Amino acid sequence: MAATERPVRRKVARAPITIVEQGRATRRRDRLATEEPLEIRVGGPGQEASSVAVTMRTPGDDWELTAGFLFTEGLLSSRDEIDAIRYCELEEPADQQYNVVTVSLRRPFDGEALRRNFYVSSSCGVCGKASIDQIEVRCAPLSPGPMLTPDVAVGLPDTLRGAQRIFDETGGLHAAGLFDPDGGLVELREDVGRHNAMDKLIGHALLEGRLPAADRVVLVSGRASFELVQKAAIAGIPILCAVSAPSTLAVSAANRLGMTLIGFVRGGRFNIYTHPERVPLP
Amino acid sequence: MAATERPVRRKVARAPITIVEQGRATRRRDRLATEEPLEIRVGGPGQEASSVAVTMRTPGDDWELTAGFLFTEGLLSSRDEIDAIRYCELEEPADQQYNVVTVSLRRPFDGEALRRNFYVSSSCGVCGKASIDQIEVRCAPLSPGPMLTPDVAVGLPDTLRGAQRIFDETGGLHAAGLFDPDGGLVELREDVGRHNAMDKLIGHALLEGRLPAADRVVLVSGRASFELVQKAAIAGIPILCAVSAPSTLAVSAANRLGMTLIGFVRGGRFNIYTHPERVPLP
Repeated sequence: MAATERPVRRKVARAPITIVEQGRATRRRDRLATEEPLEIRVGGPGQEASSVAVTMRTPGDDWELTAGFLFTEGLLSSRDEIDAIRYCELEEPADQQYNVVTVSLRRPFDGEALRRNFYVSSSCGVCGKASIDQIEVRCAPLSPGPMLTPDVAVGLPDTLRGAQRIFDETGGLHAAGLFDPDGGLVELREDVGRHNAMDKLIGHALLEGRLPAADRVVLVSGRASFELVQKAAIAGIPILCAVSAPSTLAVSAANRLGMTLIGFVRGGRFNIYTHPERVPLP
Repeated sequence: MAATERPVRRKVARAPITIVEQGRATRRRDRLATEEPLEIRVGGPGQEASSVAVTMRTPGDDWELTAGFLFTEGLLSSRDEIDAIRYCELEEPADQQYNVVTVSLRRPFDGEALRRNFYVSSSCGVCGKASIDQIEVRCAPLSPGPMLTPDVAVGLPDTLRGAQRIFDETGGLHAAGLFDPDGGLVELREDVGRHNAMDKLIGHALLEGRLPAADRVVLVSGRASFELVQKAAIAGIPILCAVSAPSTLAVSAANRLGMTLIGFVRGGRFNIYTHPERVPLP
């Protein structure tokens, strides 16, 4: 993949606010998490790139977000398919230039693939089971390891929060952290969108050639939705932890895909929803 | 609009979990928020309905979600355009039957409109400013009223939480509540997806003929993103409150659209980000 310098983007901006507390109003400047749209375009050799998505995201790690999104949505199967990732090069205002990322593939790109992936095809058949079926055909079986001890599990949120500088400033960002089974933080990504934080994390591992991440644990700062289970499974991550609650479909998918799903990791305790065999219990 | 009975859907399911706490593991059954895909199809007279979106949602209030989504995405301008809303009527398994909603319009439907709305068209021009421009052309100016006193504002989260029965059971649902300016809860909707909760609330008001909701205040349980500001603006709601942080683009949009945006409503205090003239201050 051609390497191009990524510009530094501002993840935080300042804005004037009025704080109202106990009948008093105070004016000051406060920090906000930046949210901007990112358009993702993809094309093959000799093809004009076509627009596949616009996501509202926090600028920074845009190439990782792009690669992670395409990979977890099934539009990209390995980093070797990527010829180059670049920002839009037209002579437009600089603000807009960095909100469009184009991926040039080494093979033809089927612009209708996303649409087909997205709209489940059977005549009246969209349901949770069909959604899980779709992932299953795209995933290799998850590794039986690693093991995550309860002591390590309960410590993950503090490690994540400690490393999450931007969250502390703005209170407005979701985080996803990749850990080794001993609780060491390997990578952290933040975004206004929870799925984007996960895509950035997975995109980083993809671009570094570190997928499947079969010996890793991922922790997300919010709830565990179906889509987060899907993304973790496609990246080969066998243990997904969430600070808050999982949904029914997240639990069904994790169960079928062989993933250990842990929720409510807070205050020294947690719940195991699926595949407890990766957690050594007393 | 033709009235059809809506079946009751289960918003909560039970699953076995293992609770790990202080070196002890306990098995029990716990409640989870239901997450299932909903496919939305739209067609005009004599047209085959086309699929416009699949969203992961908590079942229940599916017609409101559908109407609210189409309205806030600019695919529907009034309830009078709706001839009927119905679930799929094929003889499929019952689970799937209720995951597809078809809207029949009284006028032709342009299936490419969503795609055009979604992908900002200029050659290299996706940016926050363009996104705000798009909303501005679709919104009537917001009403200068109502006024929201600090005493009423700080009490909104407790009212919402008190009415949020499902959240208390599962910890997994976002909520959006519509209030009158005196703090009375008018409607509450919940969903695993924050945008869905807002769409259900707005869809309800649309179907009841109560839009624009010019004398209402809306409170969301999480963060205030650009899309939530957009949805509130299109519904004509002049005051948006959030329990957590807003993003930069949410603040820019609220500022331009004349909306009062309030964040971090918790612990008896709040921050006003835009248009403080609707909050009488000491």
